[in-house]
Amino acid sequence: MSASERTATNTLQVTTPTDREIRIERIFNAPRDRVWRAFTDPKLVAQWWGRGNKLVIERMEVERGGHWRFVEHAPDGVNGFEGRYREVTPPERLVQTFEWDGLPGYVAVDTATFEDLGDGRTKVVSTSLFHTTEERDGMLNSGMEAGLSQSYAALDRLLATLT
Amino acid sequence: MSASERTATNTLQVTTPTDREIRIERIFNAPRDRVWRAFTDPKLVAQWWGRGNKLVIERMEVERGGHWRFVEHAPDGVNGFEGRYREVTPPERLVQTFEWDGLPGYVAVDTATFEDLGDGRTKVVSTSLFHTTEERDGMLNSGMEAGLSQSYAALDRLLATLT
Repeated sequence: MSASERTATNTLQVTTPTDREIRIERIFNAPRDRVWRAFTDPKLVAQWWGRGNKLVIERMEVERGGHWRFVEHAPDGVNGFEGRYREVTPPERLVQTFEWDGLPGYVAVDTATFEDLGDGRTKVVSTSLFHTTEERDGMLNSGMEAGLSQSYAALDRLLATLT
Repeated sequence: MSASERTATNTLQVTTPTDREIRIERIFNAPRDRVWRAFTDPKLVAQWWGRGNKLVIERMEVERGGHWRFVEHAPDGVNGFEGRYREVTPPERLVQTFEWDGLPGYVAVDTATFEDLGDGRTKVVSTSLFHTTEERDGMLNSGMEAGLSQSYAALDRLLATLT
C-alpha cells in the first residue's frame, strides 16, 4: 500500500452505538507509541488539538485524578475546554471528562483506546458518554465532526514529523 | 405545630426515580432566602457541609460556569470534592456537577430546588444524575445517606442561628 492509498483510508467514522454515546474511529499512519505521545505530551497536543488555531494549554496533568484545561484561540473567538483524567494506561487507554466553557456543567466521559494494527498504523477509537440524549445530540450538531476532522488532519501532519 | 414537632418531621427522604438518579427531599425550619444563603455563601457552607468536620473551601464561585472545590478534614482522612456550577437561579434553583477525588472523572449532576412552604419552612429537593447505574449505586452504597443526614443536622443548627 502506498502512502497516498493509506492516507485516503484515514477518514473519521462516527457512529452512535447507544442513545447517549458517540463513537469515533480513526486510523493514523504511525506506530502506537508515537500516537500515544501525541495525545499525552502537552507540547505535542498544542500542535494539533486546536485544528491549527493557537492552543494554550493551561493545565495538563496526565495521571489519574489530574486536570486538563485548554484554551483555543480561533478566528471567531476564544473557547475554553477542561476536564479530568479518570484512567491513564499507556499506551492503550485514556479516559477523561470533557466540558466546554460554553455549556459549563455538561460533562461527557471520553474513553480512547489505541490499537496497534501491526503494520505501523494505529487505530484510535474514542467513545463519548453523555448524561442525556439531548446533550449527545447537541454535541453531534455542534460541528464536532468537522472540527475533529481538522484536528486529526493536523495530527496526521504532526505524526509524519515525529520519530 | 411546636418547634419539636417540626424538627421531628425533618428527616431525609431518599428515592431512586430512575435507574441513574437519586432524589433527596428534606424540609428545613427556615425561610427560603435563609436556606438559599446557607447553600451559596461560602462562610455559611463551611459551617455545615463537612458534617461538623473542618471544611476548607478552596474555590466557590457561585455563578454559571464557576468552579467549586471543598476539602473535608475528617478524623479518618482528608477528602476533596469539586465541580462546576451549571445554573444559579436565586433563591430557587442551583445546578452543579459533583465529583469526589477518590473517583476522579466520575461526575454527577446535582439539581437542587428550594420551595417556600409558606409557613416559614423550606423544602429542598436535590436530584443527582449519574452517567451509569453502577455509579449511582456506588453513591448509594458509599454512606451518602448517613453523611448527608449529619450535614443537614449541622445545617439545621446553623439555620437556627441566622436571622
